[in-house]
Amino acid sequence: MNCWKDNVKKVVPYTPGEQPQIKNVVKINTNENPYPPSPKVYEAMKNFDADNLKKYPDPLIGKLIEAIAEYHNIDKDMVFAGVGSDDVIGMAFLTFFNGDKPILFPDITYSFYDVWADLFGIKYEQIPLLEDFTIRKEDYIRENGGIIIANPNAPTSIALDIDDIEYIIKNNPSSVVIIDEAYIDFGGVSALGLVNKYDNLLVVRTFSKSRSMAGARIGYAVGCKDIIKYLNDVKYSYNSYTLSNLTIDLGVASIKDDEYFRNIVNKIIETREKYSAELKKLGFTVLDSSSNFLFAKPSGINAYDLFEELKRRNIFVRYFNKQRINEYLRISVGTDKEMQILIDNIKDIIG
Amino acid sequence: MNCWKDNVKKVVPYTPGEQPQIKNVVKINTNENPYPPSPKVYEAMKNFDADNLKKYPDPLIGKLIEAIAEYHNIDKDMVFAGVGSDDVIGMAFLTFFNGDKPILFPDITYSFYDVWADLFGIKYEQIPLLEDFTIRKEDYIRENGGIIIANPNAPTSIALDIDDIEYIIKNNPSSVVIIDEAYIDFGGVSALGLVNKYDNLLVVRTFSKSRSMAGARIGYAVGCKDIIKYLNDVKYSYNSYTLSNLTIDLGVASIKDDEYFRNIVNKIIETREKYSAELKKLGFTVLDSSSNFLFAKPSGINAYDLFEELKRRNIFVRYFNKQRINEYLRISVGTDKEMQILIDNIKDIIG
Repeated sequence: MNCWKDNVKKVVPYTPGEQPQIKNVVKINTNENPYPPSPKVYEAMKNFDADNLKKYPDPLIGKLIEAIAEYHNIDKDMVFAGVGSDDVIGMAFLTFFNGDKPILFPDITYSFYDVWADLFGIKYEQIPLLEDFTIRKEDYIRENGGIIIANPNAPTSIALDIDDIEYIIKNNPSSVVIIDEAYIDFGGVSALGLVNKYDNLLVVRTFSKSRSMAGARIGYAVGCKDIIKYLNDVKYSYNSYTLSNLTIDLGVASIKDDEYFRNIVNKIIETREKYSAELKKLGFTVLDSSSNFLFAKPSGINAYDLFEELKRRNIFVRYFNKQRINEYLRISVGTDKEMQILIDNIKDIIG
Repeated sequence: MNCWKDNVKKVVPYTPGEQPQIKNVVKINTNENPYPPSPKVYEAMKNFDADNLKKYPDPLIGKLIEAIAEYHNIDKDMVFAGVGSDDVIGMAFLTFFNGDKPILFPDITYSFYDVWADLFGIKYEQIPLLEDFTIRKEDYIRENGGIIIANPNAPTSIALDIDDIEYIIKNNPSSVVIIDEAYIDFGGVSALGLVNKYDNLLVVRTFSKSRSMAGARIGYAVGCKDIIKYLNDVKYSYNSYTLSNLTIDLGVASIKDDEYFRNIVNKIIETREKYSAELKKLGFTVLDSSSNFLFAKPSGINAYDLFEELKRRNIFVRYFNKQRINEYLRISVGTDKEMQILIDNIKDIIG
């Protein structure tokens, strides 16, 4: 007799960075923002009438979509929102990557892309980054069923020039090209300026990094009206109500406080530059970061050993046991204080 | 040349009930709870440190899973949680219904089941309910790739006997059988008592109805450890962090306040019985409800005309333009005051 287990979709899930539940750790391993969300977000939470929880949220996520559209000065029919950018990108894979040809993405990039492809049975080809971890735009001009590029890329932290991005979009009119801009607020030029020019472009953003709201789960995508309509149709075929009505209010409050947002982003960029220099002084190779993290190769100590020793000292960074990048550590930019603790400990370890 | 639109997944999305954004309406069209969530939920919101929003939530949703496990007196490895029961069931379809044989569900039931099947390319067979809108258990003993049954069923409001449920589970050992218990707190006997006996059973629950938290988006599922493990693997392949850390706290607070929960559930049952009788007095045929809604066939007026006329008066009920049930209205149980307004208006309309 058959067993129900024969019909189970078997997958190798994505492994997120550790979320230590203990206090007093320096947690610079999942690219979170070290600063709290805007005080307006606190205020929205305090002002939220919990009685509203009894009603379903607006399935159109209207208030948040409108705030985002206004912020980017685009039409609200060009915005889609979901439970973090993971939900948005996962839904986009399911919606747009249904052809027979493989989709393309770099061999070294956000490690969820191949997981989604496997989940939905999408063929894919991983295009090797060049030796210096940059993307060669010409490599993406070949038969494909879709393209996804993180810009700035992770975990390399390197941004691709907007002209190169446009070259890839323009030369792939029969594929949807997704630009995953999780880190764009920290550097690089956004592809948002191209959404009115190319109907095959989807730009994805998140509140998890620059907006200090990883815990709230808000992501969004911007594209032409057709692309957003298709994405919404699939969303409404899966779950009509993805964002809680409280989350919607918090998201709106964040978007409305642009001054606070710009301040913390600038602060993080300053810290990044300062501690990139510090690491270099200690002999590290540090890639040129356009993100809120540093991708750095230690000197005088093996990356994995340093990772483990730092963890023993309650300092969590990220190590990828993967060819080409297993000599590097990915270090999220924390507060100056956290970064100084890191530097002091590295000094202590490498003597 | 091909167009990217050739590779788009084209679907006919689920149409949720209207969510009027105007005030002063009697909204008894989406089976929401007329009472607010437990005061403990308010408290948890007020006590939440918004600073926590900057960090990713616990991907294991540990606190909430533990509270649910304790509440049902089961092991925490037997609980899965998601963004409302729609997310949980959608994920279960994707995980468990990958065979060649059609899955089975009633012809009249929650109208999302065929939408999920279409989205994921799952074959299905809709088994007609009997003339009296009940389920004949023997109809589910045939070759299939999975079974889903809502108990109590919607929009009929009728519960299936737990012995019949067990008969279906027991006689389908090579299929996963999902029992969707969105409304079980209002009547019927839960299949939760069977999860330790059958490894092919998944019981799905929601915070949206009995817990007055439709706006918070929390659903969960209970099953044997294997079933939950498979479900989590697929979840982690789609989105590692589905529930916000604020939502997790609100969910825990609701679970912990059992007295409040039982009180409002009992209140709704009382109101249901009272107004079921009132509708019968007006000549309506009202099915025997084990849920927080009434499925009722008007007398002396066409169901659609009554639906439209009530809407004109800012009273929203649900009408399904679908064979076999297009003479019925689905009326969520509101407060006594709301139900009285409904009755008064129906009297006025049918004269």
